[in-house]
Amino acid sequence: MSEPKKKTDLVNAAAVPKAVISRLSLYLRELQHLVRSGMETTSSSELGGLLGFTDAQVRKDLAYFGQFGHPGIGYRCEELIKAIRGILGTDLTWPVCIVGVGNLGRALLGYKGFSQQGFRLVAAFDVDASKVGSIIEGVPIYHLNALTAIVQEKKIRLGIITVSSQAAQVVADDLVAAGIEGIVNFAPVTLTLPPEVSLVGVDLAIELEQITFAVVNRRQNG
Amino acid sequence: MSEPKKKTDLVNAAAVPKAVISRLSLYLRELQHLVRSGMETTSSSELGGLLGFTDAQVRKDLAYFGQFGHPGIGYRCEELIKAIRGILGTDLTWPVCIVGVGNLGRALLGYKGFSQQGFRLVAAFDVDASKVGSIIEGVPIYHLNALTAIVQEKKIRLGIITVSSQAAQVVADDLVAAGIEGIVNFAPVTLTLPPEVSLVGVDLAIELEQITFAVVNRRQNG
Repeated sequence: MSEPKKKTDLVNAAAVPKAVISRLSLYLRELQHLVRSGMETTSSSELGGLLGFTDAQVRKDLAYFGQFGHPGIGYRCEELIKAIRGILGTDLTWPVCIVGVGNLGRALLGYKGFSQQGFRLVAAFDVDASKVGSIIEGVPIYHLNALTAIVQEKKIRLGIITVSSQAAQVVADDLVAAGIEGIVNFAPVTLTLPPEVSLVGVDLAIELEQITFAVVNRRQNG
Repeated sequence: MSEPKKKTDLVNAAAVPKAVISRLSLYLRELQHLVRSGMETTSSSELGGLLGFTDAQVRKDLAYFGQFGHPGIGYRCEELIKAIRGILGTDLTWPVCIVGVGNLGRALLGYKGFSQQGFRLVAAFDVDASKVGSIIEGVPIYHLNALTAIVQEKKIRLGIITVSSQAAQVVADDLVAAGIEGIVNFAPVTLTLPPEVSLVGVDLAIELEQITFAVVNRRQNG
């Protein structure tokens, strides 16, 4: 069980393409589905097939982190789940906060997918007096003034920003000052962070643009 | 002006990595910021610098689609914006619908970033009688039964799925049957679609896993 963990110690994170990490998350999700439907083992072609990837892609992605298959068996689902969770760091529980309790913040507070993967929303922050002091989806809402104190008290490591573009950088600076290690930013603006703080930006219009590109160019070429 | 459009006709969409398309969206966003702050021209190093990419990365990404710089000037912002919008297909207006008016669907109905990039939310669908017939953020809510009729009447081309994992595939099949060309799926489940329908899956836990991977492996290596 500690075997896959040891292997991940050898990974040079900077050498792994971002897309590989995204696909690891997808493999993890499919493996969890397989286990729920009673499967004990799987193969690179089955796992790839569920996601529309080739078996070679699956093997190449996993090869960044070690050798996980067994001759004549394939992958043992539970073992590979443990290994991937170790690689992604989601074998730990991560206390997370949300800053900005508008519609999107509220939606994320109720999002079931987080707790399934080891994320625990323990606090949310806003400046709106009508929200501060309330509890939404089981999560207490604090005033933004209390950010540093609550982050330290609850040992919060990750922050999700769901404020407006105008406010996002200030909030990010506050989160960094409070000692947060990583930020997911939903405001459609590019943030400047110190290199030791990890950042992922989620711009929902960009997701739609992936689709329009595919639609427009399929038409032009087809 | 039609020049960049002609160039995109030559693009083999399948040969362009998905990550390049995401970065085009980011370049577009930064160029729009530059124009709003009064800049008329920019360079690959300025544009890259704003996003944390190298100038070589910017040039390589744009080179998939043509030659956009001018000797001694760099990029003309408005010209490059037009070219990128042509490549992404967002020089057109895209009628979009949302299926599932829970917290996330409601948040997306109020999301300002869509209209800024040419997406027009024209309808939402749900099965909850208390929501059907109402108007949220200016968008009418219809019963799911009316999906095909409304998609055809309003010439809707893209669908956003914000229902539960259990309901997502059925809704996707309905959207495909109604003639939709592309789907953004927020349900944390892998959908099966015919090859002519484009699909982007947005799994919010996966975004967090990008962060935990970076945090965990930085610590191990650092």
